[in-house]
Amino acid sequence: MPGEFDLIAKYFSRPTPHAVLGVGDDCALIKPTPDMELAISTDMLIAGRHFMPSDGPGTIGHKAMAVNLSDLAAMGARPRYALLSIALPEADEKFLQGFAGGFFGLAQKHGVEVIGGDTTRGGLLTISVTIIGEVPPGQALRRDAAQAGDDIWVSGTLGDAAAALAHHQGKLRLETGQAVQCFPRLFVPSPRIELGLALRRIAHACIDVSDGFAADLGHILERSYVGADVWFEQLPLSDALLPLRDNPAVQDCVLAGGDDYELVFTAPVDKREQIESIGKKLDLRLTRAGQVTPLSLEGRGVKGEGEAADKAMRILHHGQPMLLDRSGFDHFGP
Amino acid sequence: MPGEFDLIAKYFSRPTPHAVLGVGDDCALIKPTPDMELAISTDMLIAGRHFMPSDGPGTIGHKAMAVNLSDLAAMGARPRYALLSIALPEADEKFLQGFAGGFFGLAQKHGVEVIGGDTTRGGLLTISVTIIGEVPPGQALRRDAAQAGDDIWVSGTLGDAAAALAHHQGKLRLETGQAVQCFPRLFVPSPRIELGLALRRIAHACIDVSDGFAADLGHILERSYVGADVWFEQLPLSDALLPLRDNPAVQDCVLAGGDDYELVFTAPVDKREQIESIGKKLDLRLTRAGQVTPLSLEGRGVKGEGEAADKAMRILHHGQPMLLDRSGFDHFGP
Repeated sequence: MPGEFDLIAKYFSRPTPHAVLGVGDDCALIKPTPDMELAISTDMLIAGRHFMPSDGPGTIGHKAMAVNLSDLAAMGARPRYALLSIALPEADEKFLQGFAGGFFGLAQKHGVEVIGGDTTRGGLLTISVTIIGEVPPGQALRRDAAQAGDDIWVSGTLGDAAAALAHHQGKLRLETGQAVQCFPRLFVPSPRIELGLALRRIAHACIDVSDGFAADLGHILERSYVGADVWFEQLPLSDALLPLRDNPAVQDCVLAGGDDYELVFTAPVDKREQIESIGKKLDLRLTRAGQVTPLSLEGRGVKGEGEAADKAMRILHHGQPMLLDRSGFDHFGP
Repeated sequence: MPGEFDLIAKYFSRPTPHAVLGVGDDCALIKPTPDMELAISTDMLIAGRHFMPSDGPGTIGHKAMAVNLSDLAAMGARPRYALLSIALPEADEKFLQGFAGGFFGLAQKHGVEVIGGDTTRGGLLTISVTIIGEVPPGQALRRDAAQAGDDIWVSGTLGDAAAALAHHQGKLRLETGQAVQCFPRLFVPSPRIELGLALRRIAHACIDVSDGFAADLGHILERSYVGADVWFEQLPLSDALLPLRDNPAVQDCVLAGGDDYELVFTAPVDKREQIESIGKKLDLRLTRAGQVTPLSLEGRGVKGEGEAADKAMRILHHGQPMLLDRSGFDHFGP
């Protein structure tokens, strides 16, 4: 059986032309581009929680890179480097080969060089990725920058990934054609890197939908000390989910389903034309689905992220407030 | 039970005065110091493999930060930022509190700001840390820079951590006084950050002892295309292990035991005085224990890291070659 060093060399050592020093030393070395800020994020994926071991190694590799790229997209940062740590129950070459295919395939598509990592044997397949991107000073799309009066925009469509999962779990019945449309959203999400870059100096605040639309918009509201009105009937649904729009399980997927990795962003009203032309240029649906509101006095000072966001956000269905039975995915929630 | 966001906020959100943006957005933002290179490393620690769940949360937190700092020490980089991902079987507040104490305690001692992370529920306690340091261009202490004729130096003492583990496992019998000396080396290792910084422009190549002295020196030889003679009787042993120097199990700890996190480095002969004065200044034992040799033709071109290093390195005990039955810790070895 090949040793750790052989496996790393074989599957995880790829050219890193922009790094001063790539995989193989105690640290990697990079020379940051002068006058750029670095955007850095890390995500850990665990078998049985963030993916199923049966998902297929290429799919797992793709997703591990995609969820990290999505964090850069949400900041408007250009991807540059990544580090990959992986704990494997056993040194399974076939898995590593497939995983590396998915992981490096998406990395290369976005110009990411994998400059370091760690491979170890563990009881449960666990993947931890750190990603590094660049953004000009002051241009990062932060959660705390939404302003009352901003439009609320959503990219792509919402709920497909969650609907696929619900279908798989027997909680929702999709027709075959609908399932075929939804499953790729769950297994091979597309991080909206190009959109994030295009939104620099146009959007105010931005976040990617990983915990669910309502929860993630809630993070923006919480950080920006603002409220929001969301028009449920305007939220973008795929052709697959549109006929099921009145199904409460589907409404739950749309509002509270994670794993879509679309961007939710706020922008001033006078940027509407520019945003619409970005959507056309990128061939990506961009939908205006709400408005940022001033936070009422009662909303201020409420302890607890969820509570404050709940009070600050109204989701309206044809003008009537909707009630949500859950507002996102909390890994340690009750 | 508090949710993920509450737990993160309570234990893992600390001030990050040098970062543009710390924990709480999709990414952290940092402004790199102009004209510095960034040294970046990541390490994953898994319960039962890199630590025991019974080790105590503060100890586990300390070690998770220490092994990452040690990678920066080995590059001569100044610690700046870290990201922490942690998978927990359950949201155990007492564990998180203790862990954070050990982790942030050591981070603060070395000026490290924790700018991001990820917390999730998982079946096995797993910790992944990414660390970022700074080093002036061209001054990083790389593995590939050893030159024939260099002295080989070791900081501190070797084998204590492995001896403590062997004692714990019943493979080696230490007296109580010896065990008391060795156990802290296993549980609360001291990364040699100050030494790494002092060795810039003095040492040629450097590595930290995490896999074992012979294996880690082997990495330098492999990358630098050189050989080495090591004088076993010169290798630095603690007062605890010195009386046991002829015990083969102890010799194994000294040569092949990991987890010491000392630095092994090579330096030109004309730097001896400077290195000795660094040792005095830092109150840290620095021992010259071998010499880098030209690689014989037979050593070149051998496939496989271990094999080439085995051929390139001679460990001499009073002039006689010693045989090693293992050369380090390979997580996927046979």
